[in-house]
Amino acid sequence: MIKVGIIGGTGYTGAELLRLLVRHPDITLQVITSRSEARRPVAELYPNLREFSELVFSEPDMIKLAGCDVVFSATPNGVAMKHARDLVESGVRLIDLAADFRIKDIKTWQHWYGMTHACPELVPEAVYGLPEINRNKIREARIVANPGCYPTAIQLALLPLLEQNVIDPTSIIADAKSGVSGAGRGTKVGSLFAEVAENFKAYGVAGHRHQPELEQCLTEIAKQEIKLTFVPHLTPMIRGMHATVYAKSDKQGLDIQSLFEARYQDEKFVDVLPAGSHPETRSVRGNNSCRLAVYRPGNGDQIVILSVIDNLVKGASGQAVQNMNIMFGLDEQSGLLNPALLP
Amino acid sequence: MIKVGIIGGTGYTGAELLRLLVRHPDITLQVITSRSEARRPVAELYPNLREFSELVFSEPDMIKLAGCDVVFSATPNGVAMKHARDLVESGVRLIDLAADFRIKDIKTWQHWYGMTHACPELVPEAVYGLPEINRNKIREARIVANPGCYPTAIQLALLPLLEQNVIDPTSIIADAKSGVSGAGRGTKVGSLFAEVAENFKAYGVAGHRHQPELEQCLTEIAKQEIKLTFVPHLTPMIRGMHATVYAKSDKQGLDIQSLFEARYQDEKFVDVLPAGSHPETRSVRGNNSCRLAVYRPGNGDQIVILSVIDNLVKGASGQAVQNMNIMFGLDEQSGLLNPALLP
Amino acid sequence: MIKVGIIGGTGYTGAELLRLLVRHPDITLQVITSRSEARRPVAELYPNLREFSELVFSEPDMIKLAGCDVVFSATPNGVAMKHARDLVESGVRLIDLAADFRIKDIKTWQHWYGMTHACPELVPEAVYGLPEINRNKIREARIVANPGCYPTAIQLALLPLLEQNVIDPTSIIADAKSGVSGAGRGTKVGSLFAEVAENFKAYGVAGHRHQPELEQCLTEIAKQEIKLTFVPHLTPMIRGMHATVYAKSDKQGLDIQSLFEARYQDEKFVDVLPAGSHPETRSVRGNNSCRLAVYRPGNGDQIVILSVIDNLVKGASGQAVQNMNIMFGLDEQSGLLNPALLP
Amino acid sequence: MIKVGIIGGTGYTGAELLRLLVRHPDITLQVITSRSEARRPVAELYPNLREFSELVFSEPDMIKLAGCDVVFSATPNGVAMKHARDLVESGVRLIDLAADFRIKDIKTWQHWYGMTHACPELVPEAVYGLPEINRNKIREARIVANPGCYPTAIQLALLPLLEQNVIDPTSIIADAKSGVSGAGRGTKVGSLFAEVAENFKAYGVAGHRHQPELEQCLTEIAKQEIKLTFVPHLTPMIRGMHATVYAKSDKQGLDIQSLFEARYQDEKFVDVLPAGSHPETRSVRGNNSCRLAVYRPGNGDQIVILSVIDNLVKGASGQAVQNMNIMFGLDEQSGLLNPALLP
Repeated sequence: MIKVGIIGGTGYTGAELLRLLVRHPDITLQVITSRSEARRPVAELYPNLREFSELVFSEPDMIKLAGCDVVFSATPNGVAMKHARDLVESGVRLIDLAADFRIKDIKTWQHWYGMTHACPELVPEAVYGLPEINRNKIREARIVANPGCYPTAIQLALLPLLEQNVIDPTSIIADAKSGVSGAGRGTKVGSLFAEVAENFKAYGVAGHRHQPELEQCLTEIAKQEIKLTFVPHLTPMIRGMHATVYAKSDKQGLDIQSLFEARYQDEKFVDVLPAGSHPETRSVRGNNSCRLAVYRPGNGDQIVILSVIDNLVKGASGQAVQNMNIMFGLDEQSGLLNPALLP
Repeated sequence: MIKVGIIGGTGYTGAELLRLLVRHPDITLQVITSRSEARRPVAELYPNLREFSELVFSEPDMIKLAGCDVVFSATPNGVAMKHARDLVESGVRLIDLAADFRIKDIKTWQHWYGMTHACPELVPEAVYGLPEINRNKIREARIVANPGCYPTAIQLALLPLLEQNVIDPTSIIADAKSGVSGAGRGTKVGSLFAEVAENFKAYGVAGHRHQPELEQCLTEIAKQEIKLTFVPHLTPMIRGMHATVYAKSDKQGLDIQSLFEARYQDEKFVDVLPAGSHPETRSVRGNNSCRLAVYRPGNGDQIVILSVIDNLVKGASGQAVQNMNIMFGLDEQSGLLNPALLP
Repeated sequence: MIKVGIIGGTGYTGAELLRLLVRHPDITLQVITSRSEARRPVAELYPNLREFSELVFSEPDMIKLAGCDVVFSATPNGVAMKHARDLVESGVRLIDLAADFRIKDIKTWQHWYGMTHACPELVPEAVYGLPEINRNKIREARIVANPGCYPTAIQLALLPLLEQNVIDPTSIIADAKSGVSGAGRGTKVGSLFAEVAENFKAYGVAGHRHQPELEQCLTEIAKQEIKLTFVPHLTPMIRGMHATVYAKSDKQGLDIQSLFEARYQDEKFVDVLPAGSHPETRSVRGNNSCRLAVYRPGNGDQIVILSVIDNLVKGASGQAVQNMNIMFGLDEQSGLLNPALLP
Repeated sequence: MIKVGIIGGTGYTGAELLRLLVRHPDITLQVITSRSEARRPVAELYPNLREFSELVFSEPDMIKLAGCDVVFSATPNGVAMKHARDLVESGVRLIDLAADFRIKDIKTWQHWYGMTHACPELVPEAVYGLPEINRNKIREARIVANPGCYPTAIQLALLPLLEQNVIDPTSIIADAKSGVSGAGRGTKVGSLFAEVAENFKAYGVAGHRHQPELEQCLTEIAKQEIKLTFVPHLTPMIRGMHATVYAKSDKQGLDIQSLFEARYQDEKFVDVLPAGSHPETRSVRGNNSCRLAVYRPGNGDQIVILSVIDNLVKGASGQAVQNMNIMFGLDEQSGLLNPALLP
């Protein structure tokens, strides 16, 4: 049994990690830390876990964490980097659900996240945890930087096209729509029910933190510099993310449906729908899949890819568990095999 | 492996049965029938099942159904009764998720459901499938009448009080609130998003089909005639049911918290919350539990019980699976052990 | 033109006051104060007012307020009482949308609101602003205590029955359901979209601040002491309140439909629906009406009254405007005549 | 007083027309026809109108309609065209809220709407009712084709750019998101609450009826052929539409903010927000405005325009009333001056 610890765990990605891990057959949850909730049973904060876990939040404690095989950091940005050195030196592998290890260029990171990085020397070795690209590196990684939700949905929509170099790299637009759980459990006016319900809006059009993450990763995939137009929107739902991705291709004969099916045929968590489908976010609610549909309207230059994930699962905690499964040689689907809740 | 068939299965209780059964470790899904969807893969209608089932809807076919150990009827009222005789004569056990076998008095049933009963001779032997009352009878039953959602939430709220005869039987009020999936997947104006969202209303105040079911069952539990005031309401959410149940007791010293805890201590799917709690419907979303909290405001005569279930799980398909587990000597929790999806 | 000021006005009752007042034909909005938003245009905080108001939030300033004919206090509890003396001494009439002047018994008020009252000497003269009871007193009042949302919906449901003394005063239960805007624009975890959506729960079952307000008012109406059981619930919608009120009556021949119709025939903002109706909260969304339906299920002892209001309109800001109209001899419906937004 | 008739009026655009017209100061509602609801009071179907209208639905009756000055057709596609000839010959002006007169090319219309046009000879004279383009023609029109909701939001986003010829006409993408009331009050599985809530999806990616309408209109504005990529999405809310429109421009020095402000400075119902704003659909809920924000991310080639309307108001019934106001020389804002309901 893999011994697992969680740092943080009082936000929505933490809640979702717990939901997945309490039923994971190959692990044992050893410790979960939270300064604000120390000594409170996990099942008191999350009553859905009442029959599933006796765990109690504890004060952050490196000794306890050092006894784990792997630690998930489900904290705000800037926390994992403070524990990373101690953890890896103790032989504990780290999966960071926040952004501390996602961006290789420290200056860029510091610009977007507004703080000084606490362990820049560890950033180069951190592996970006998108298994569909980095599965082999993840297997060996000491530190896995779990991708952001928008970057997950958007990269999986572009991967086959960029790898095959069949689209105009200056033509990419990602129009993305997210449920509000992506904004976390923090108390902001903008996350209140009476502000979000019966409302739809774009945000961060002038600049969003996931843009540099996206451009770094897409550039690496394409092996040429990629800039994209990225417009995130807030949708009145709890979970779910839909990216509508546009790119131009002058390869007229190209069968993009086959291209996608071929690329993802061995991927357990990427599902290319039959031609003409419209993936719904609810079809992955609580589930770790990304579902894709591809279009070329009017048979023209413009390619349209529809990509849906659950932002808390494939966009965060489910992908983190998938990464853990890979790191420890478990079945990649272990603990992740439950159908979405529909309706 | 128990061989399972489903009649119907294109409505929400059918979808939920499928979601639960595709991951049930002790059964194999043999056949699912639907006249309207015959020859269509189940995973096409319910994309959340794409990785989980190869099953295809087939035309209703008694020969295939007769090869099963158990058949769930997830159809509108009045369908199961037409198949019941053939099934039980073939040695197949039947779990009816609709109302055909819930009410013992045929006249009452015919009055409320507006049709002639097709097999009144089988009604007496049908067992009302609330395991917390009838576990032993369910074990042996050829026909199980799976309870309605409102009756499940309300009976579990009243059971300890009626069994101990500590409340005034003329004082019971059940003010119940349901998510809209309880109205089914049928196309009615009243179920449209634009009618239900941002709206709350009572319905059926002058009379609701679950009232005679409730009064029959409560009377049996109390061993005296029970009439209650029952007011159902429609809440703008997909899943979830909250019953707020009121009853008067002149037993001043009575410790109702202990009474409930004692009654349900061995019940895996009834969870009495600590005193002072307010159960939330989301804490059972997708889960088979009923959570209860009990109050005696101002220490007066009035008792208030708060009872929540997922109307599609403990209120329908989850309870049906629980009944199947009991009927076949399986672990009662088999296939039902997943935490609610929260948030 | 009546000169109007608003203290506060950055919460939801303030936003709703502004929405109603910017189109009111008989008033002019002179000043709106807010410490946190001082110098910010109102239409920047509330873009729905962009074409409707040039007003700018200003620092609290008694001199400006003293120039008004009437001031609405749309602040948290405990603020209006600090300004009340200065205002009334300056000849300004005060309508407090919070609770500072609702409860006559100072000790009770201090117990429930957890602070010392700043002007207990003004409490006796304050008029409880439910026009259907106190219209004449409101006309002359210097201070109007605008009722709470729950007390408005519940009192209007009980008024005809208590005035005619036809129900058992010990039998009253008010099971009430509110949209989340009633919790205000403050940032609490419990008001987040991801906590409220797809969820239903009771709260405050052991005690709620509107209970003493209710009991004081119902006692006054009934001219005998009234205690009631009051259970509030949170519903996943922005606006709307539904009270389901239960009371027992042994007056068998009583025609409650006629009783209600007669009592409210001259009330412009109370609408008794035809027998057999189920009022929907959306039918009053944005509108100042209370709609009622009355039932006596099975022709028994139990009476059931369904009462809906928009908690921000008849339950707060609309009623405040109605009170202002009465205080200044305007048409009681002035500025309040817009149909609810449906769907 | 302008004498007004409505054909249809039982769907959502009809309900919204009624909500606006019952308070319109310059008109009198003479007749509303509906085969299915004949002899039923309007206020029974729409309880929000109980204090506002005594009108009763009547059987379709050309004699009554012929006595009107103007008739709104708020019916499904294909109905208005059957009444158009009789109406205009009787001197009645017609505003069609459906699509019968929107598309000039009859073949194209017949292809997309799947029926034979009943009065192709009247199509040439019908004026496309987008006041911001056709105000003068609308003034004189006998038949006004009220625009679709998507075309309204998208054209207003592109108008200044196309008129000034500053964008690449091959680069236009409209990623649009609509509330579900746009699908009407018809009973379709896809419009059920349990299908729409907590879900987001694209639809009609391979082709949508608003595409030919859009291309015809944009072509006319641009005075050159325009093809665009149009992807509509369904959002879990009742009302509201958000179009995110993308176009490339090599005019580096172009100040698009000023361009938009100048173009719309005299338009009462188009509101260009300050630079850096994100318009929210709720800011126009129930209101006839279109709010726009314009961006050029990273100062590059790509222009992004955010455009919001209430699909039932500026996207349907409000725009129809605006057109009527223009046709009869009334104040263009008459009956349309109410702030959006927020929250």
